[in-house]
Order: sequence, then structure tokens, then C-alpha cells
Amino acid sequence: MAKVFDAAEVAKHNTLDSCWVILYGKVYDVRLHPKKVTDFLSEHPGGSKIILKLAGKDATEEYDPIHPPGILEENLKPEMMVGTINQETLPKVQTEPASSSIETEGPPPMESLLNMDDIEQVATKNVSKKAWAYYYSASDDKISKHFNTEVYRSILLRPRVFIDCTRCDLDTTLLGEKLGMPIYVSPAAMARLGHPAGEAGIAEACRSFGAMQIISNNASMTPEQIVKCAAPGQVFGWQIYVHIDRKKSEAMLNRINKLKEIKFIVLTLDAPVPGKREDDERGNAVGASAPVPSATKAAGGAEDETSRIIQSSGGVGKQLFAGTDPSLTWRETLPWLAEHTNLPIILKGLQTHEDAYVASLHAPQVKGIILSNHGGRALDTAPPAVHTLMEIRKYCPEVFDRLEVWVDGGIRRGTDVVKALCLGAKAVGIGRPALWGLGAGGVDGVKRTLEILADESKTCMRLLGVETVDKLGPQHINTRLLEQQIYDGPSGLESIRSIFRAKL
Amino acid sequence: MAKVFDAAEVAKHNTLDSCWVILYGKVYDVRLHPKKVTDFLSEHPGGSKIILKLAGKDATEEYDPIHPPGILEENLKPEMMVGTINQETLPKVQTEPASSSIETEGPPPMESLLNMDDIEQVATKNVSKKAWAYYYSASDDKISKHFNTEVYRSILLRPRVFIDCTRCDLDTTLLGEKLGMPIYVSPAAMARLGHPAGEAGIAEACRSFGAMQIISNNASMTPEQIVKCAAPGQVFGWQIYVHIDRKKSEAMLNRINKLKEIKFIVLTLDAPVPGKREDDERGNAVGASAPVPSATKAAGGAEDETSRIIQSSGGVGKQLFAGTDPSLTWRETLPWLAEHTNLPIILKGLQTHEDAYVASLHAPQVKGIILSNHGGRALDTAPPAVHTLMEIRKYCPEVFDRLEVWVDGGIRRGTDVVKALCLGAKAVGIGRPALWGLGAGGVDGVKRTLEILADESKTCMRLLGVETVDKLGPQHINTRLLEQQIYDGPSGLESIRSIFRAKL
Amino acid sequence: MAKVFDAAEVAKHNTLDSCWVILYGKVYDVRLHPKKVTDFLSEHPGGSKIILKLAGKDATEEYDPIHPPGILEENLKPEMMVGTINQETLPKVQTEPASSSIETEGPPPMESLLNMDDIEQVATKNVSKKAWAYYYSASDDKISKHFNTEVYRSILLRPRVFIDCTRCDLDTTLLGEKLGMPIYVSPAAMARLGHPAGEAGIAEACRSFGAMQIISNNASMTPEQIVKCAAPGQVFGWQIYVHIDRKKSEAMLNRINKLKEIKFIVLTLDAPVPGKREDDERGNAVGASAPVPSATKAAGGAEDETSRIIQSSGGVGKQLFAGTDPSLTWRETLPWLAEHTNLPIILKGLQTHEDAYVASLHAPQVKGIILSNHGGRALDTAPPAVHTLMEIRKYCPEVFDRLEVWVDGGIRRGTDVVKALCLGAKAVGIGRPALWGLGAGGVDGVKRTLEILADESKTCMRLLGVETVDKLGPQHINTRLLEQQIYDGPSGLESIRSIFRAKL
Amino acid sequence: MAKVFDAAEVAKHNTLDSCWVILYGKVYDVRLHPKKVTDFLSEHPGGSKIILKLAGKDATEEYDPIHPPGILEENLKPEMMVGTINQETLPKVQTEPASSSIETEGPPPMESLLNMDDIEQVATKNVSKKAWAYYYSASDDKISKHFNTEVYRSILLRPRVFIDCTRCDLDTTLLGEKLGMPIYVSPAAMARLGHPAGEAGIAEACRSFGAMQIISNNASMTPEQIVKCAAPGQVFGWQIYVHIDRKKSEAMLNRINKLKEIKFIVLTLDAPVPGKREDDERGNAVGASAPVPSATKAAGGAEDETSRIIQSSGGVGKQLFAGTDPSLTWRETLPWLAEHTNLPIILKGLQTHEDAYVASLHAPQVKGIILSNHGGRALDTAPPAVHTLMEIRKYCPEVFDRLEVWVDGGIRRGTDVVKALCLGAKAVGIGRPALWGLGAGGVDGVKRTLEILADESKTCMRLLGVETVDKLGPQHINTRLLEQQIYDGPSGLESIRSIFRAKL
Repeated sequence: MAKVFDAAEVAKHNTLDSCWVILYGKVYDVRLHPKKVTDFLSEHPGGSKIILKLAGKDATEEYDPIHPPGILEENLKPEMMVGTINQETLPKVQTEPASSSIETEGPPPMESLLNMDDIEQVATKNVSKKAWAYYYSASDDKISKHFNTEVYRSILLRPRVFIDCTRCDLDTTLLGEKLGMPIYVSPAAMARLGHPAGEAGIAEACRSFGAMQIISNNASMTPEQIVKCAAPGQVFGWQIYVHIDRKKSEAMLNRINKLKEIKFIVLTLDAPVPGKREDDERGNAVGASAPVPSATKAAGGAEDETSRIIQSSGGVGKQLFAGTDPSLTWRETLPWLAEHTNLPIILKGLQTHEDAYVASLHAPQVKGIILSNHGGRALDTAPPAVHTLMEIRKYCPEVFDRLEVWVDGGIRRGTDVVKALCLGAKAVGIGRPALWGLGAGGVDGVKRTLEILADESKTCMRLLGVETVDKLGPQHINTRLLEQQIYDGPSGLESIRSIFRAKL
Repeated sequence: MAKVFDAAEVAKHNTLDSCWVILYGKVYDVRLHPKKVTDFLSEHPGGSKIILKLAGKDATEEYDPIHPPGILEENLKPEMMVGTINQETLPKVQTEPASSSIETEGPPPMESLLNMDDIEQVATKNVSKKAWAYYYSASDDKISKHFNTEVYRSILLRPRVFIDCTRCDLDTTLLGEKLGMPIYVSPAAMARLGHPAGEAGIAEACRSFGAMQIISNNASMTPEQIVKCAAPGQVFGWQIYVHIDRKKSEAMLNRINKLKEIKFIVLTLDAPVPGKREDDERGNAVGASAPVPSATKAAGGAEDETSRIIQSSGGVGKQLFAGTDPSLTWRETLPWLAEHTNLPIILKGLQTHEDAYVASLHAPQVKGIILSNHGGRALDTAPPAVHTLMEIRKYCPEVFDRLEVWVDGGIRRGTDVVKALCLGAKAVGIGRPALWGLGAGGVDGVKRTLEILADESKTCMRLLGVETVDKLGPQHINTRLLEQQIYDGPSGLESIRSIFRAKL
Repeated sequence: MAKVFDAAEVAKHNTLDSCWVILYGKVYDVRLHPKKVTDFLSEHPGGSKIILKLAGKDATEEYDPIHPPGILEENLKPEMMVGTINQETLPKVQTEPASSSIETEGPPPMESLLNMDDIEQVATKNVSKKAWAYYYSASDDKISKHFNTEVYRSILLRPRVFIDCTRCDLDTTLLGEKLGMPIYVSPAAMARLGHPAGEAGIAEACRSFGAMQIISNNASMTPEQIVKCAAPGQVFGWQIYVHIDRKKSEAMLNRINKLKEIKFIVLTLDAPVPGKREDDERGNAVGASAPVPSATKAAGGAEDETSRIIQSSGGVGKQLFAGTDPSLTWRETLPWLAEHTNLPIILKGLQTHEDAYVASLHAPQVKGIILSNHGGRALDTAPPAVHTLMEIRKYCPEVFDRLEVWVDGGIRRGTDVVKALCLGAKAVGIGRPALWGLGAGGVDGVKRTLEILADESKTCMRLLGVETVDKLGPQHINTRLLEQQIYDGPSGLESIRSIFRAKL
Repeated sequence: MAKVFDAAEVAKHNTLDSCWVILYGKVYDVRLHPKKVTDFLSEHPGGSKIILKLAGKDATEEYDPIHPPGILEENLKPEMMVGTINQETLPKVQTEPASSSIETEGPPPMESLLNMDDIEQVATKNVSKKAWAYYYSASDDKISKHFNTEVYRSILLRPRVFIDCTRCDLDTTLLGEKLGMPIYVSPAAMARLGHPAGEAGIAEACRSFGAMQIISNNASMTPEQIVKCAAPGQVFGWQIYVHIDRKKSEAMLNRINKLKEIKFIVLTLDAPVPGKREDDERGNAVGASAPVPSATKAAGGAEDETSRIIQSSGGVGKQLFAGTDPSLTWRETLPWLAEHTNLPIILKGLQTHEDAYVASLHAPQVKGIILSNHGGRALDTAPPAVHTLMEIRKYCPEVFDRLEVWVDGGIRRGTDVVKALCLGAKAVGIGRPALWGLGAGGVDGVKRTLEILADESKTCMRLLGVETVDKLGPQHINTRLLEQQIYDGPSGLESIRSIFRAKL
């Protein structure tokens, strides 16, 4: 006759070494015949982890409704049964309490966060109001900020079937540098506002994934500090806002030129003057009692206006702009920059096919462009990068052949990454998601951000039937609705061409 | 002088045999002259049931506002009056209580559920959180899941008038098998999670309506158990997910080949790797206190990745995927399958006109295709089946001649069924509605689901002026808005044709 | 020195005969010099009523902010001043209470209801749950019901300027009958469910405006009762649902033919079987404790199905359908109807250009058609009448020349009325608004409904610069968005033409 | 050894003259070496104001997360350190209270209001219910009112990069008059209802910005009072509603002709009869207890109708209309007006390309037109001015060459202003925003309104890369979505041309 066990006795066998499970009143030792056990565990369709979670316990309620009757007999051989359970000793089944989620102190484990929204939500709770306001804010009514994300949702995917997608990876090459994924961290300022690990923490997270990072001109750490722990082959860019006093910018370029981890310079063009970020302005009061004097003043170069800006308060974003030169031009700024660095130049913030085309005429001096509306933080109702991608495809697709086109803004899902790549982008930048990741969990939070986006991107590619990022193309997406939004007015290309022809 | 009755006396006459009604203070015996009564009851425009509900009671308040004055005299002859009522004895009219719906224990009678939403709502209350999460979940932001339903609402119907719609039925023929309706139950896993009757309960409900059922590869009962009580002529299909270890799949096919009730094999292609179903992942914690470790890892075939999946937890959906082979191809998998079964093959999960066309080139080996985005559970922003139907109509309508085209996803109304048929579908599958039906009321719940959809479909056909499903066509619907969403990019058809031509 | 009055003394002079007003501490007798007063009152830009409202009171606070300083002196001559006010005696200004609307018993005065929404809201509170459910309900998800109204809002108006719109009236002629407005009351059943005045009350309201009324086959009063108090020249139509037992319909037609007020017969075609009105089904439980057995059964003509319907309960709408013949055809029903009445025939419920065209081929026997989806109560996602108007304009505009085209469904504003007329409708029917009017205030409620719609329609015409309804045309509206929704599939016109040609 | 200070001691040094700051436990005198200090302050990227805000306090928490480590040493030289702080004496850091915004009495400082919504919100609290109702109200369902604003949001901007935007101003010329910005205050009535400063207050605010103001015919101050304090060169227009009794209008014109500050006459055409403004009607009850008798009566010229209007109450808007002549025509009214004034004539309220074209045929007598739907207050679903702009561009762009085109309605952001200018408008009017500004803060509120819109407009132009308003053009905006809404029906242009040709 079978031996009768108490629940307490069974409960001791809850490890890989000694693993018992109760099913329908019987107690099984799933390691009794090691060979069998190995088979059983490795072949269990739900994975061995599930079984270990139930080790030492009565698994009947979990097991029963999802296994066809008879499956038990096929898999757990009689010789594995070591006895029966004394039902009296089992703990009473407890009905789930009304609210089963126990409110715990501190941020939850990063692996419990499933998507960018989860991460932003946790970060919003963690960081200071000022940090939240600076990260969250966008210009005016945040129409561009929201549209940046919505526009990806209006693109449908076209999955192909019967394609072997066993192998699938995100490896790519940007500016000749090998990278683990086509997702990079955009130059976002003030990382230490969200977490003491700061930009160096982002760098540490990027290292784990072979991801590229562009360091903000307004980083809260020095470039040297940020790249200090870089892995061999880890790739950084450095973003410049040109200072009214060029000497300052030249000194900074000089410093950057010495850092071998920094492989290119990004010149930001989409924000010659600061946008109006109202959340940031409201969030930046020093102390809560005083109303925040607003700085809606349009920033500019005229002497007295400039001084007004410098006197005014406004948000963090506006403060960071002080000293930025709003007078950059193709004719003067590019040659000046090329004079002070030999690094490849990337132009950030292009939002029309005309400017993308002009940039392509400056190749190979200009090696790439980033289509960006500055995360919706500069000019509200500016077009999302996807619009500009579509415009280039429509008016001057040759741009894609002449330089690399990257995009940023609104990426929240792996499907977004994939859609941008299908439209011709070589890489996709994330700004806020990295900062929210940092705010949610420091280095681990940023890692989680990158991990989620990479995993989602791979799942998407597999479900499309695509193995490598270079095989993604317009045939994988349906942009029909989007096409109905793309600029259809007079193109400035013809006049650009005649100007450039005249120069030659 | 007329006799005066107390209300209690009148109340006894509340049956078909003895049926009294009080109107305007007078008591009528509507069976006093049986012949008259029969006429009165059978001719009552509201049906005899209404009268029986009021039998033995004062019907004045119900009767008065909906009958023209004078109608009483025409219909209830003076000789039917047996007396007058003692007004004192009538119960006082009770004002409706603030909340008239009495909260009762247990699920409500199935016939009180009027539509799929009612059924889902009751099921949501009935089933475990885990079951709800598994059934409800879809990938990422559930955009495809919701769009699956919304897309039907953007199609308008075009009812024709002055057509005799006395006769109208839903009979149809699929793969040569006669069926009572063009609605079938899609292969949905884990039915016993929602109700102990499980997949066999679904089979029992289908039997009542001559409806077809496709058994999931991951059913919580064995195929033998499910088909055990089939009626003669009842039709089943069996869905296969090909296992990495082909021997296992072959053994299973061998078992299926022996079941004469199973008439065809459905090979699922829209989910070579699992989608990311966040509700399912969150709902699958064993116990409530521990945070759920997420399994966002992209599943795949590479050695070490596979092991990562098997170690990971994730939702029920992800567990069920373990062992599924992501490397299927037209060239290898189809011949292998044909080698191990003589049953007709249906390919499920096609989402582009290109793949539908390729499938049609494999006719007659392939007998049908199911346009499906896996209920929005695989790739978010994948197109709804209606989009693929429209794509086929636009690019390669000959597909409809070469094989049967079925669709699933998002069906919630009879009008949805009819619209899919108008666009060329031969049958329409329901997944979640059948599971919610099961969860709401077991076998009776599934019957109610099928009954509602069938009745709604028939009402729709009658109001369109169509007698039989084969007469439904594109002239019965206005898809103008939908057309503006359909893929308009380069078609892969030409290259497919040259590849196939080269093979011959 | 000026005499000083107490407020109480001034308060007595609050009539046309003796009208004093306090302004800036002075008391004026605005009737002191009758001639002047008459001028003052008649010329007061805000009307004399405003002044009378303030008679006997201190008007300063009302007067001051809306009159330019100095205006007082120009208009109220010093000789009209009779003294000054003793400020002590004025009541203290009371600050408005938090909620200034005093909840009163019973319905508010009809003139305080400003639009159809106000009226529906008051009616919803007044009528029984059953009446509300019957009036409010529409089929399935009420998509057509809501779209009926929304579609008008997507049409923009094109007001022309510098047009003398002093004269403007709504007079029109339908079927040769002169009417005061192109708005008529649609055949809506069961008016007494909402108010004891019933359909006769609607007739009384129509009388005041020269509006036409179509009597429902299922009216809760007899046709004779409804037309009893008709004014000379008042116009009625009568709606027929053909009974399975034709003798009954013929007897009814015989009765109608004798009523000289009834000028035409409307044959309803858009509801050969009842739609599925879930609110109605839920609202029709006799008593509140028992769950409502649903009647989702598709109604039909087959012997046993018919009996099922008669046995079933379901909503008021479904009960009213019992006995309705679903087998009407162009070939048989029209000649039968023409045989039993000499009245002009109007066909109601056409929803495609094809059927409108067929109807036009039956002119002059058929004198008009009503484009209608039965208020969204028959088939959900059926097109609104505006769609059918646009279809006719697109495919077969000659229909407008052959017979009168009326529309109903969704009308809630005078602008809706005008837009329908611009598209070619000769008249516009309202169903629910009339019933809600009745429910809100009986005869006065219906009058208010008609008054609001007529006034709004006239205001709209004036602002468009149009004097009479026959001058309204497509140039007055922008239907660009709507055009993108109109059916663009294969038209059935060609085959209709060949069939009719073959007959000749 | 460094001296140790108490917090109270440091706190005294909080001025430009003596400015100490605590950082990481050290106390710095940032004015110790005046020369250095000047550099430090002037060069501080966040501006000197930020430092002054922290003067006398511990700035560590503010400073640390936004400055790269090491920056301190570079900028605050050791010699500026005057000691260390006694940590005990520092106030404890207070955690932010749950609600940090302290509810204060009275309106907040104007500079804390960041946008039009903020201003409207404050004004809504400040003004009487009657004023709110009059300002806020629009006709019927306020569809045009809301669409006026929404339509701007559907236009995307096309920012160009690498353009020197140091200089940027809003200077423009209207009717030959130099103005500081292309934004003017529309003729809005009853300003004193919102604030005692009234229309003269608006004039005062306009003076500060060189902005133009159009005085309403129904102003609550006399024209003489309004223009009384005008600056030299300040520009006003005067709006006329033509009175039924022309003598009254002629007398008024006579008065206006004498005011040299008034440079043009605006004849309003979009409201020959009042629209139905329900909020206004509901808000205009004298006292709260009585229900408001509605005045939905259509206003008109027929004898008895006119008297009905004069007797009725209705909203403020309706009262103001009494006496307005609805019979204006091109043929009679324009010559009459030209006879009584030599000022340039502007026609307001054109809403179709046809009328814009007719107006252009009356140049140079007519010098300009204002495209307007009267703020959505006349005819609901009338087109927004942007639609009419687009219509003119599509059908008769020559209009822009013949006269000035101004627009109003829905402007809430500087981007809206810029978009209107890009489409060809020479100026943009604001009505409600000026009134809300007045209600929110009197003269300062209107100034704030103008300041915000001007600043936002300049920021927008700079981010577009445009220096002056005349350089804005259609190439700076993407109106693709909008184009799909523009009237595409038959144009009345041809018949207009033949009529005018015939006249010549």
C-alpha cells in the first residue's frame, strides 16, 4: 500500500535535486529516475521552470484544466509515484483577495515591466517633478509628440508565411561600425536629473547590447566620464549645439576629437531656438509656493532679446539653450565644423525632403542625417520622422543611396522600429524611453528598455518572415493611410538643383 | 348584475386551461368560448404568450397605451365577461425600485444574453483570472484585435427591397461537407480553463446547429474525447502545430487519420513564434504575491535561445508554443504533411494576397486557406482578414476559384458574418466567442453563442433580401471607406509567377 | 431737491401702465411722458420686455456693462427722473447659490427647451421605461442610428453674403398638397405609450404649423380618432404593413379610403422582418424580477418559424411585427395595392440607388419614395438616407424628376433639414423627435419640436441667403467628405434596365 | 581653517550686491572678485536669474543633477569660497505637499498663464455667468466653433534647417498702415461685461504691441472713448451693422468719419440674422429661479416677425441684433456706404470663393475682405476661414492680388497665426482670446494674450527658418489632409463672370 505523506513533508522536496509534486492525491518524485526526469523536464512543453514553481506543492488545480485527461499517465510513469497525500494536511485553498497586487515600497523588479508604458509609469513615480516635467514635456499642445507615436500605429504590417525564421538577428552596421541592434540612444540631456547613474549608466546598459549612444551637448556628465567604461568596439557619437562664442565650441570639439570611443559628430538643426514646453516651464518652479514666471519670449539673436532670455527663467529646456547660436547655415557652419574635426558629420533634425536632398548633396562630408522633430519638443505640428521618410521616398529616393538616414521620435514598440527600417531608415533612436528606463531602475532600467525593444523587434521580424534587418522593405508594410497625409505641394527640389548646378 | 371577484380568485385562472384577465375593471374569461379563445390567442398580434403572462392579473396598465381605443370591444365579446373586479383587493401598484435588477448568484439564464458582449461580460465574471487573461489577451497594444472588429463596422450594408424573404437559410457546403451554417468554431486552445465541459462541450453545442469545429493542437482534451459523441455527419478539422521533433507530429497525425469525424487538417502558419500577449503574461502568475517574471524573449530556433524560452515562464500562450518548429517552408513542410495524411489540407494564417496566391498554386493539394491574424494574438498591427480578402479581390481574384477561402477574427455580429461572405469568404470562424460562451454557461453558453450569430445572420440576409448564402455578393455591401486602406504598394505576384513558371 | 423713494415704493411701479426703473441711484418713470416712453420702449435695441423685467427694480448692475457710458443721458431725459433711491432700502445683492437651477417637480415649460436633445432628455425622465426602450432602441449596436445624425454634421454649409433675406418661408407642396413646412411626422407607432394624447395629439400639433403627418399602421389610436380634429386642408398619409392575411389589409385599406384627410398610402419596405432592438427587448420585461427571455429568433415566413415568433416575447417592436408579410414583391404587391386604393402610393425604406430607380420606373403609379433605414431600427450598418440621396445623384439623378424623394432618420437640427433639401429631398420626416416631444409635454411638446426645427431651418436658410425651399441646391453645401463614403461598386442599373426593356 | 557659517547668516547675502550660495557644504561669495562674478553670472548658461533665486540658500540639490561633475571646480574658483556651512542650521528639506499649488484669492499673475486655454480658464472663473455665456456661446452644437480651432491642428508645418533666424520680426503693413504684428483684435461686442476697462482697455493693450483693433458696432463704450488714449500711429477700424433706419447708421458713420484714429470701415455680412446661441440664451436669465424663455424665433424683416423678435428675450447676442437690417445687397448697400464715408471698406464674413471673387470685382472700392464664420456664432457647420482660404487658392487665386484677405476664428496658438499667413492671409483676427484676456486680467490680461501669441508666432517662424511674415508661403505647410475636405462641387464663378461682363 502506498505510503501517505503529510503536506509538510512533501514541501521539503522543492528543489532541482529533490522535486516532488502532488497530482490528484498522489505524490510523484519527478527525479526518482534521473534519466526520466531529465526527459520529462526538458520535454515539458511549458518548461521545467513551471514545474519547479509547483515543486513540493499540490499542482492539481494548475495542472488539470490545461492538460488533456490521460496525458498524466503517458508522462508520469507509475514507478515515479512515491505515495499519496494526506488531504487533511493540505492548506485550504484561499480565494484571491479583492486586490491581489500587494503595494510594495520601491520600484518593482525590472523584469516585471513589459513595455515602454510600464517603464514610463514607474519612472514617473520615481523621479522628481522637475525631472518628470523636463522629460515628459513637448512643445505647445504636444500634438507632434503624440502623433510621433500614433503615426506608427497607422502603418499595418504584412506578415509572410512559410518562411524559416529560426535564425533572426538585429545586427547592423552604422557608419561602418558593427552594432548589435539598429536601435540607439538619442542625445537626451540631463540624465542625472532622473537617476544618479546618469549618462554613464546609459552607456553601461548600451554596452550589454552592442547599442550605440549619442552623448548630449547638455549631458549632466562629461564626455570623458561617460565613455570611461566603454567596452572595446562600443560606439558613441557626440552631439553639438554650436555656441555663439565659437571658441567654446571649438574647445569642446578639441576635447571630443581626443576620445577614440566617439566616432561621429551630430549637429542638431531642429531647434535653433527653444520650443515652448509648458510642462517643463510649470515644473521648474524653485519651491512650490511661487507662481512660475513664464518664459514664452521667443529666443533670438538680437542683442536685447538675447539678454531678455538670459534674464528669464522658464523650464530646464530653455535654460539649456542659452548661448546656442541660431544663425547656422549650410554655407558657413559645415565648413567650420569640418575644420575642427575629422569625425564623420551627421545632421540631426531634418524634416523636409528638400533639406534631406540638400544634405545628400553635401555627402560625403555629411555621412548621415537624422530625421527628427526633436521629440515634438521644438515646433508643434512639425511632421513625424515617418512623414519625412515617406516624402524622401516620394520625391528624391536617391538620398538613401548617398548617405545613411536615421530617425527618432515616438518609438514605443519593436513593431515601430521595424516599420521605420522598412521605410528605409538604417537606425532608430530612442530618447525618452532611455531616460524613463534610467528613472525607473537606473542601469537595469535602461537595459530593460533596450531588451524589450530588441525582443519585440525580433519577434516582429520573425512573424514577418524576415531574418536580417537589411531584408526589410516597403513590401512588408501597408502605408496606404499614411500616403494620404504626405505633402503634395510644390517641391523645392528644382530650385535647389539649379542653385547647386550654378555653384559648380 | 355582474358578479364581483376578488383579485385572489382571478389569480387562480392563470393557465392555458383557465385563463382570466382583468381589463378596465372587468374580468374576462378568454377561454369561455374555446373556439373564440383559440382565434383570439392565435390572432393576437403580440402572441399568446403575452396574454398568458398577464393571466390572472389586471392587464389594464399594460394593455391600454398600446391598443387603439375600441379594439377591446372588437375582440373581447361581451359574453366573455364573467364579472367585475373588487378594486380594493388588487395589489397596490408598486413603483419600480431604484435598481430593478436583482443581483442573483450564479450566471443568468443564457436566453437573457442578447449578444456577444453580454456573453463575454458574464464569462469574464465566471472564469478564473488566468483563463480570462489567456482568452482575452492579444499581442502588444491589441490594435489588431480591436481593428478586427472595427473593420466590419466600417462596411455598410445595401438592403434591397420588395424581395420575398420568407425562406432564408444558412445551409452551406465546406470541402464538400454539408453544414447547417457557414460559422465554425476556430481552433482555440485550453477550453477546460474556462469550463470543465471543455472542447467536448463545444462539440456538443456544434452538434445542435450542424456547425463545424476545428480542434486545437493544444486542446485540453484529446481528439478522441472531443469527437466521441459526434452526431452522424458532424464535421471536425484538426489543427497542427508542427513539432521540432517531427516524429511527435507524425505520431499525432497517425492518431488523427484514424478518426473518421476529422475531415481535414489545418496547418497554422500565422504564429511561427509566439506573439507578446501582455495580459496573458500578467495573468499567469502562480500565486498573487510574486511579481510575474516576463518572457518577452523572442522565441526562435537558435540553440541557446530555444533553451532560454524553455526556462522562461510567460503566459499560457507562450508555454503552449514550446517545441513548435519555426522553420516551416512551402518546399519542405507541405510534402511532408501530405506524406503523413490523406486528409485535405487547409493553410491558416495567410495575411497577404501574395501568400494566398502561392497557396492557390498548391491546389488541389491545398484545399483551402484561412485568412487570419490569429485573433490579433501574433503580430500587432497585422491586417484583419477583411483586408486580405480585399487584397485578393484587387490583385488575384482567381484565388477564390481555386480553393475555399475562410476567415476568422473579430466576428461579433451576424452582420459581420454576412459581410465576410459578401466579400468571398465561404466560412467564418469564431474563437473567443465560443470560449466566452463556454465560460458563461458551458454547453448552453456555446449554443447561445451559435444561436445568436445564426439568428442575426439570417435576419441580416432577410433584410438584405437574400435567401441563401451563395447569393451574397459585393453588391450587397459598401466598402468604399475600406478600399482607402488597402495595400497599394508593389505586389509580389509577378516574381511569384516567374518562380513557379521556372519550376514547371 | 429730488424726492427720495424707498425700494418698496418703487417696486409697485412694475407694469406697462406704471413703469419705474432705478439707475445709478436715480429713479426714472419711463412712462412719465407717454409719447417718449413709447419711443423709448419700441426703440430699445433689447426690446421692451427686458425693461419690463427690470421694472420696479434697481437695473444698474444689468444696465451698466452693456451700455456705452453716455447712452443713458441720450435716452432717458432729465424730466423722466422722479427722484432718487434710498440705498438703505435696496435688498442686498445675493451671490448666486452654488447650484442656481432649482429642481422643480414636473416637466419644465416647453419654451425653456432649446433643442431636440433637451426635449429627449425631459421625455426620458417623463415616460415609462418601456416607452423609453421602445422609442430609443435601434438594431444591434445602434451604429446606423447614430450615423444617421452624424452624417449631417459632416456636411458643411456654404453661406452666401449680401443677399436680402428679409423674406424667408418654409412653405412647400408635397404630392400637390400645400404645406407650411417640408418637415413631416414619420409613421411612428405607439404614441400613447409616451403620452395619453397619442397620435391625435401629434395631429393637433401639426395643425398649428401646417405640417403633414403619416399615421402608423401600428398607431395606438384608430385613424378615425387621429384625423378627427383635422383643420381644413390638413394633410395625412397612412402607412401600411401588409398582413399575411390580405383580407385584413384590404379591410383596413377600405376604411382608410373613406377618410378624406388621408391623401396617400405609404408602403413600408425597409422592415420585412423585425430588426434586433436590444434595448426594447430588455425594456419589455413584465415586472422587473424575471430576466427577459429574448426573442433573437429571426422572424420569417416558414410555417414553424412563424409560430415560434408568435410564441416568443421580445420587445414591443417585435410584437408589433406579428402577422406582417415578408414576401412582398414589385410584381405582386404593387398591383394588389393599386387595386384596393386610388390614393397615391409612396414607397418607404429604399436604401440603394437601384431600388430608387426601379421605383421611378413605376411612376406615376408610385408617386414618391422615402429614403429611410427605419431610424436605424431594422438593419444595423444600413446606410443613412443621405447616402442614398448621394447615390441617386451619382448614378441616376433622373429619379428626382420622376417622383418625389423624401427622407427620414437622424434629423436633429434645422441645418439637417436644409442639407437634405439641398441634396434633392422634397421633404424630411421626423420620428423619434415627435415622440420625444409628446413624451416631454404632450401636444405642447410636439409643437415645441416642430417650432424649433422650423425656426432653425428658417435661420439656416436666411444665413445661407435663400428665401424659399425650392431655391436650395447642392451649391449650398460642401459634401466633399461624404463623397468619399459613397458606394462605388458595380451598379445594378444596367441589368434593371434590360429587364424592364424586355418587359415592354 | 574655513570659517563656519550659520544658514541665517548666509541667508542675508541674497542680492546682486552681496550674493552667497551654498554648494556641497561650502559657502561661496559669487561677488567676491567682482570681475569674475560678472563673468560667471553673464556666462552662466541658465542665466543670472537662476543664481539669484538661490542666493543665500543651499543650492546643492538644484545644482547637482544638472551639472557634470567637475564643472564646479572650473567655474567657482577656490578664492571665492568664504567658508563652510553648519549643516545643523540648514532648514530640513520639506517633502512637497500632496497638492503643491496653493489656492489663492483673486486671479493669478498674468505671466503665469502660458497659453490661451490658461487665460480662458481664469477668465471663466472671474467673469459673471452672463458674460461667460455671451463670450463662450456659439450657434447650435458649436461644431463650427470647435472646427475653427481643430482645422489648424490638421495642418502640419514644414520646418527648414540651417537658416539664420537670428533676426525675426512680425512687422507688417495693412491697408498701408504699419503695424507691429499681423494679429488684430476682432470687433467683439460688450467688453465691459467682462471687465470695467472695456474696449478702451483692449486699445491700451494693443498700443503696447502696435496691434490693430476693430471696434464693434455694439461696443460697450463709445468709439470716442475707445480711441481717446491712442498712441500716434495706432490703428483702429470700425465695424458697422447697418440699421433698418439708415439715418441712424448715417449719423454713426458721420461720427466715425471725424475720428482720425479710425482708418477703415468693416461691414459685417456673416450675420444678417442672429445665430442660435444656446449657452447665451440659457445664461441670460435675469435672476436664477425663473426658467429662461427661449428666443429661437428666426429673426427676419417681415413686419410681424420683427415685432416678435423685439418682444422676445433670448441671449445678449440676440438683443444686440435688434434693428439690424437683413436686406443688404451688393447693388444697394455698397454704394450707400461709399456715399457716407471715404474710409476704405472691408467686408467681413465671406465664406465662399464665389463671394470672395465678387468682392474682388468691387476693388478698389472694397479694399479687403475678412474670411470669417463669425466665430461659429452665426450658422453652425459653416466653413472655417481656412477652408475659404483654400477654396480661393483653388478656384480664384487672383483674389489675393486684388485686395487684402484677412481671417478670423479659432486662433489659439502662434502656429495657427503662421499657418493662416502661409495660406495667403495678410492678417489674423482674435475675438474671444482678447475678451478672455480682458476677463482674466483687464488690460494686463489682453497684453498677455497678445504677448503669448506674438512670441509663439515668432518662435514658429524661427523654427520654420523664416525671418519676415511676407516670406511665409504654402511651401511651409502640409495641407494634404485639409485638401480632402475642400469644396469640389460646381463653382458659381462662371455665372458671376457673365453677370459682371454683362454689366460692363
